[in-house]
Order: sequence, then C-alpha cells, then structure tokens
Amino acid sequence: MKSISVDLLAQRLQAEQLARPGDPINRLLYECLRAAIHDGSLPAASRLPPSRDLAAQLGISRNTVMHAYEQLMTEGYAKGLTGSGTYVADRIPDLPVLPRPSAASTLRSRGVAARLSLRGRKVVDGALAQTRQWGAFMPGLPDITQAPHQKIAQITARLGRTLSPATLSYAAGGGHAALHESLAVYLRQARSVVCEPSQIVVTEGVHQAIDLITRVLGDPGDTAWVEEPGYWGTRSVLEINGIALQPLPVDAEGMRPPPGDRPAAQPPRFAFVTPSHQYPLGAVMSMSRRLDLLAHAARDGTWIVEDDYDSEFRFAGQPIPSLQGLLPDAPVIYVGTFSKTLYPGLRIAYMVVPTTVAAAFRTAQAELYRGGHMLMQAALAEFISSGQYAAHIRRMRLVYAARRAFLIGLVQQWLGEGWIHEYDTGAGLHLVLALPVGCDDVAVTDACAAAGVLVRPLSRYYLGRRRSAGLLLGFASVPQEQMLAPFEIVVRCIRQAVKAPDAA
Amino acid sequence: MKSISVDLLAQRLQAEQLARPGDPINRLLYECLRAAIHDGSLPAASRLPPSRDLAAQLGISRNTVMHAYEQLMTEGYAKGLTGSGTYVADRIPDLPVLPRPSAASTLRSRGVAARLSLRGRKVVDGALAQTRQWGAFMPGLPDITQAPHQKIAQITARLGRTLSPATLSYAAGGGHAALHESLAVYLRQARSVVCEPSQIVVTEGVHQAIDLITRVLGDPGDTAWVEEPGYWGTRSVLEINGIALQPLPVDAEGMRPPPGDRPAAQPPRFAFVTPSHQYPLGAVMSMSRRLDLLAHAARDGTWIVEDDYDSEFRFAGQPIPSLQGLLPDAPVIYVGTFSKTLYPGLRIAYMVVPTTVAAAFRTAQAELYRGGHMLMQAALAEFISSGQYAAHIRRMRLVYAARRAFLIGLVQQWLGEGWIHEYDTGAGLHLVLALPVGCDDVAVTDACAAAGVLVRPLSRYYLGRRRSAGLLLGFASVPQEQMLAPFEIVVRCIRQAVKAPDAA
Repeated sequence: MKSISVDLLAQRLQAEQLARPGDPINRLLYECLRAAIHDGSLPAASRLPPSRDLAAQLGISRNTVMHAYEQLMTEGYAKGLTGSGTYVADRIPDLPVLPRPSAASTLRSRGVAARLSLRGRKVVDGALAQTRQWGAFMPGLPDITQAPHQKIAQITARLGRTLSPATLSYAAGGGHAALHESLAVYLRQARSVVCEPSQIVVTEGVHQAIDLITRVLGDPGDTAWVEEPGYWGTRSVLEINGIALQPLPVDAEGMRPPPGDRPAAQPPRFAFVTPSHQYPLGAVMSMSRRLDLLAHAARDGTWIVEDDYDSEFRFAGQPIPSLQGLLPDAPVIYVGTFSKTLYPGLRIAYMVVPTTVAAAFRTAQAELYRGGHMLMQAALAEFISSGQYAAHIRRMRLVYAARRAFLIGLVQQWLGEGWIHEYDTGAGLHLVLALPVGCDDVAVTDACAAAGVLVRPLSRYYLGRRRSAGLLLGFASVPQEQMLAPFEIVVRCIRQAVKAPDAA
Repeated sequence: MKSISVDLLAQRLQAEQLARPGDPINRLLYECLRAAIHDGSLPAASRLPPSRDLAAQLGISRNTVMHAYEQLMTEGYAKGLTGSGTYVADRIPDLPVLPRPSAASTLRSRGVAARLSLRGRKVVDGALAQTRQWGAFMPGLPDITQAPHQKIAQITARLGRTLSPATLSYAAGGGHAALHESLAVYLRQARSVVCEPSQIVVTEGVHQAIDLITRVLGDPGDTAWVEEPGYWGTRSVLEINGIALQPLPVDAEGMRPPPGDRPAAQPPRFAFVTPSHQYPLGAVMSMSRRLDLLAHAARDGTWIVEDDYDSEFRFAGQPIPSLQGLLPDAPVIYVGTFSKTLYPGLRIAYMVVPTTVAAAFRTAQAELYRGGHMLMQAALAEFISSGQYAAHIRRMRLVYAARRAFLIGLVQQWLGEGWIHEYDTGAGLHLVLALPVGCDDVAVTDACAAAGVLVRPLSRYYLGRRRSAGLLLGFASVPQEQMLAPFEIVVRCIRQAVKAPDAA
C-alpha cells in the first residue's frame, strides 16, 4: 500500500510539474494528494506515507510534505493520530470528485482571465504612477522624514486611551466632526476658503475626492476641461468614470478658457484647475482668468474643481487666496490634502463642497467607499487646532525654500541661465527644467532611471500632440547634500541627449 | 470718514443679512469689508474703524470684528500698524472689482449646484449605509472594544521607530510585501485559498476591492449576477460603475444559477457570491452549486468574485473551504477583510487575483487610488505571522458563539420557536429573524430606531419585488447583558407590527 501510493504520487507530481512548470512544488503536491483522496487512490482511513519517506522518494524537503499534510488536516481530508502518523479522514469532506477542466476549457478560462475591460486596459496601459516613490528628485514628495510623527503619535496615543466604538467602526459623516471644525478655521485663515464645517468631506486622498466628485456630479459622456499639461491622476480618475477630457492649454496666467460670451456648444460639466500653482508648470491663475472661468461656469452650468495640492509652500510674495473664496455661492469645489504638508502614506485629504450638495456627498461617500481612520482624524484635528500644524508648515516652508534655492543654484552652476521653466512662480515642491527643442525628455528620464535617479518627463503630462520637453525635479524630499550626486547624473543625461537629439 | 464707513458697513451688513439669512455673521461682515475695499468705499491706506466701535455700532461681538480684520490682513487687504489700529493696505491686492452675480445667475448657479448626476442621484436616493454605526444589534459589526489594539499598537510603535520613506510615501505595489506573505500563508491554512503572495492586493476596505475589480475587468453595460437578497454595498459599487445587475435567488444551497448547459444569451461578466456564508441569509453554497457556477463561468467567460467577509466565525462543524481553492486556475477572485476580525475603521481588506491579471491590478490600483498606510500593514503582517491573529480569531469565536447562543435563547424565550431563518448555518456576526407574512419589517425597524435600537429590515436587501420580511440582528458587538433591554424593545415592536399588519 505504502509504496504504491508513493509511486502514484511521484508520477502524478511529475506530470503536474511538466504541465505547470511555473507552479510551486508545495502547491502541486497538495493538489496531487487532494486529488488522490478524492478519486479514491488514497482511500478513506488509509495511512498516508510517512513524511520522511515521501520526501525522500519525491526528492523534496520534508517540510514541504509536512506542510501539505497539515493543509489536508486543516481542511478535514486527513487526521493526525498521535504516535502513528497521518491518515486519510474516515469520512472525506462532502465533495464529489473534482472535474479536471479539459485542456480547451482551461485555455479558454486563462484567456478570459487575461482579458481586462476596455477601461481597465486603458488605465493600465496609460498608467503614470511610479512603482518607486522615493528619491532625490521625486516630484511632489515632501521630506517625510521631517513629518511630525512623534507629535501626532503622542496625540493619537492619548486619544486612543479612550477609544469609543464610533472611532473604530465604519464612519458615515464625511469624516470626523472635530477635523471638519479645525479644517474650516484653518482653511479660512490660510487659504481664504469660505466654508462651514458641514461643507467639508474628509477623503482617502485626493484621488478619492476626485472620484467622488466625478460620480456624484458627472455622468458618463460628460466633458471635463483639464489643464494641458496637467496632473495624470486627475485625468485617470476622470476617464475611468467615463468623462471625456478636453485639454485646455496653460500659459503664464494659468488655464486659458476658450473665448466667447455665449454658452459653449458642448458645455463642460467640470473644469479641473490648479489656480494657486498650476501643476506641473507653476503658473498662478490671474484674477481675470479666474473671473472668466467663473463666468463660463455660471453660463454653462460647470462645476469648477480647485485642486489646491501644495499651495502651502509659496516662498515669496503673498499667499494666493483660493478661487473658492472669491465669489459667494460659486459652483466651486475646493480640494486639499495632507500628502504634501505631512506625508502621502497618511492618505487623508479633504474637500469643501457647496452647502447644496454637502449632504449628498456624505451619503454617497458612506455608500460607495465607507469610511474609517477616525482616530487619526481626531488626532489631526487637535494637531491643527493647537496651532502645531501651521507651525510645522512654517518650518517646512523655510526648509523647502532653502532646498529650492540650492537646486536652482545647481542648475545655474552646471547648466547655466534660462533652464528654469518660464512659468515658475517660486512655490511648491518641484521645479520644471525646460529642455531644448528636439531633446527627448523621456530618453533623459530613462537614462536617469538607469543610473538610479528618479525624474519625470514633462511631455508625459500632456494629452495632445503639442508637447514641451522638460524635466520635473522635486527638491523637497532630501537634504541639499543628497542632491549633489544625483544632479550630476541628471546633467550628464541631459548633455548626452542634447548632443545627440536625433538618436532619441 | 470713520462714521461714514461704519454707517456704510452697517447698511451693507443689514442688506446681506436679509438676503442671506442662513449665513453666519462673521462671513457676512468679512465679505462686506472686502467688497467695500474693492469698490473704493474703504480707500487704500485709509484707517478701518476701531474694532470696539464697529462692534458696538453693528451690535455684534468685538471678536467677530477682530476675526474679520485678521482675515483681511492675512489676505493682504489690510495691515496692522502697532499702536494705531488697522488700515486698508496701501496697494490692494491686484484684484479688479468683483462682479456681484445677478439674481438670475445666482439662482441659476444654485440650481446647477443642486443638480447631481443621474448616477449620483441614484446612489444617494438608494443609499443603505447607516449614519449610526454602532449599537446592540447593528449587523456586521464585531465587538470592537475587544480588538487587539494594544498588541497592534505595540508592534506599530516598534516598527515606527525606524520609519523608512517607503513606509510613508505613496504605496504602489498592491500593499506591503510582508502582508502579502503572511496573508498568503494564513489564507492557505485557514481558508484553503491557493495563492502566491504576488496574487494578493491589499485594499482600502472591501468596497475598494469591488470597485477595482469592476473597473479593471468590467465595462459599462456588462452584467453581474448578484445574490437576491444580497449585500447593498456590492450592488451600489457595481451600479455606480455602470454594471447591470441580474439578481439570482438564493436558497438553502446558496445562489441558484439559471439551468442550461449552453452559453447564456447575455453572459454575465461577473458573478458576485458569498459561498461560505450567504449574506444576509446564511446559507453555505453546496458543492454541486459551486461546480455548477464554475462550469457556467468557464462557458460564459465570467469572473466569479467570492466575498468571504466573515467566514472566520463559524461556530459548528468544519470550516468551509473557499471556492477559490477548489479548481486550479479558475477565474475566481477571492475577497477578504479585517473589518470583522479586527475592526471596520481599520479600512484594510485584501483580494487574491489570478496571476494573469495580478500586475494589471497593482498598476490600476496605484493609478486610480494611490496607496499608503504601510506602517499599519507591516504591523498586521507581524501580527498575523506571529500567530496572534489566529489566536485572536479563536478567542473571539468563543465570545461570539456564546453571544449567538444567548440571543437565540432570547428569541426562543420571548418569541418562541421557528423565528430563526431556515437558511441559518451557525456562523457570522448576525441572525436573521423571519417575520410572519404581512408583517412590515421596515415599520418594525423604524419603530425600533425610534426607541433607540438599530436593526435592519431584510426586505431592503432585495432588488426585486419578491421580498421576505425579516430582521437582521447583529449579536457580536456588545456583551450579553447589553442585549436584554434592546431585545425587549425589538420584541415589543415586532408584536405591535404582527398585531396590526394592515396598518403597515
């Protein structure tokens, strides 16, 4: 009996290994054993080969065999009898013999399994999110080592001593009420946002805010104006939700709405803008453009979405007041985040929605995403209302101003004048280097990546064919001295691309 | 000058208060001041009325005035001169006079602002997520006071001492690699899920998993089989993504696929099922149904999504192996969550996807949602691999078994035999009470809610018109003694509804 079953298993295992060369041995062995129990090759109540013997015969480790036996025991296919080994269960769990799918149906289901949806294929093929998310020139990343973890952890630990069920259950009110309160005060003072706490919805990052806005206010086939160039994440979330993108070029005054006083032929449902600091080029939207955009929106029934992602970091001049606060009751939704002021992995952002739709947003959020993370939200509320948040921002503003000045110095020293993009307005967490015409910024980026340096090519931020070449260089995430060596690499890669533009 | 400006402000403020009775006084005052500066009523470099005077004249608190002045200073409209009060700025920020929208355009933009999308309106109107998320009989809620917060906090604190940038930045790999590893082992042992760590994608709750599955694998217009009755959250996420729902009735063997061996006329793209413990009725899907469903899926190119939301809590008999592990390479996506085993506010769930689409899922997740919460994921990985997670589940299984028995005892004692739904299989975190025909379960639920007790009406879990009346009673969230008084209320409400079925 024993040797027969070992032979049988060895044969089957060999056959499976040939048929499925990529699959791990422990999985194959487990499946062979289970199949043998099911088809009666290993009858009920029979003894399984001792693990040592089976391992030796099959030429695999004893651990692998024991693991498979344990798995069978967990599932009720086998039982261990103290001192006398492992046996097939007296009564095999109530499973009929499993049909092995025919080769054709296996292939077919593999084909199906590889078939993504059209929208899924599009988002995967066009994805711009990077797998590596940290490095000297990673754009949009703050210095997360300087985030006030200890202070927030202290608050969290204290609040956590009296955990209430409401703190730990699903959250349904658009976030923690205390965070609504402290954000309303902070946004009023720091960003001239005019709002009541009830207008604030806390979200799992800016992407969830955009997703929620798009779904609650937009239907498939609706159009959105987006900035050209602009943020890839906004565009991906809009597209997956069936919104058609209409890119509008940006210049030194920000996004340029089309001329004309009459309602648009195909009025946009949304206008997604970054008025305080255009992403990625850096312009501030001028007052006349803001008023123009508001007028367009009033005429066309357009929702303006103001993505105020990093306006806390403006290093010269006055802070730029938000578009949201400019006109009472304007159809503007303001979106902000802690990703740049604290750290991205926190995944907490917020939006300010008009009172007319605030209840709908809360309801839809609870229904579609459910909520949570209330303890962290309560801690953030205290961190903000105690003034520590504003102090942290002030401190980081100085740190980033110095790093920005340092990087600009490096650019001037190594490359010369005229490389900083003309729309730069001295703010945010990254610079854009303008590359000479004909220089392939994707090639430069690839060359940098091959040398271990993360930069991003400006041309990838365009939807249309008219693209400028450039490089986005984050200056915030690491101290000055850690920029030196990577910058030399960037310079070398640029020079090579400029020398050989035709090779690109 | 001074009294003129005070009079002017008083008049304008009064007018605004009449026009916008709901708006808070501080906002109105600030806007009046800003408008007066813009239109020259308060000229550049002129002195603003002392806050005390203005407050007295307007009959409001001095704090409100000072707040408005500070806001104006923050935005560059005013400046404070030490010892001599507050002045309008010498040069008013480069803003033209703001156009006040005409009454018509204001109304129009208010109308626009109230207009949701069709899909947004549908999700809001049909929303079933509750605003209150905790109470004696709240279904689907574990006892979050017994969650192992301290143990997880200790691990988190230790891991947090050496925070790496990768822990705090955007996450792009479908979650923390250590959590993939420990989940793969746990799921293999506890749930017979056959997978490699690379097949696991960690998500922000089950809703994000369903959202991602729907988008990556389904297009608008595709059809999904869903269980009738079934989980409202799955249906809402499917619908917002444009998937048509085809409800299939469940019986004691789980969901009943339509008969027939030929491909369906309109083959479903998805089949969403809860085979281990049908939600909400409790059946276990029989082996023949499982095989039937797999055969349908192979024929029709259907993705089966196995929502294994609370199968850890089965109080009698063998654990039910997952559908995912039944057949190699079957087009099954397995979804699980920590919401029931730990607590919902944690917002961490996971799915196991076939290897053919694993990379696409990771990419799409990073692109559409971005990721984070890596420190907590690392802590969970350790909590699982150290065996503490399984131990916690074993402990809670005993706690919940006792609570379930207690609640069943209450039902039998107060209502008699035959009230527990016939499909109950002794698992999960809630019971379903079957109500007599003609008894309105929504009316019972409303009566309970009015008395402060949260239950949920079974009829709301149906999409079609053939609905059974019943009540979902969670038994997990509070200790036995806290069920007594609420249960008396439930009994009273049921008896009233049974007495007067016509009034319902």
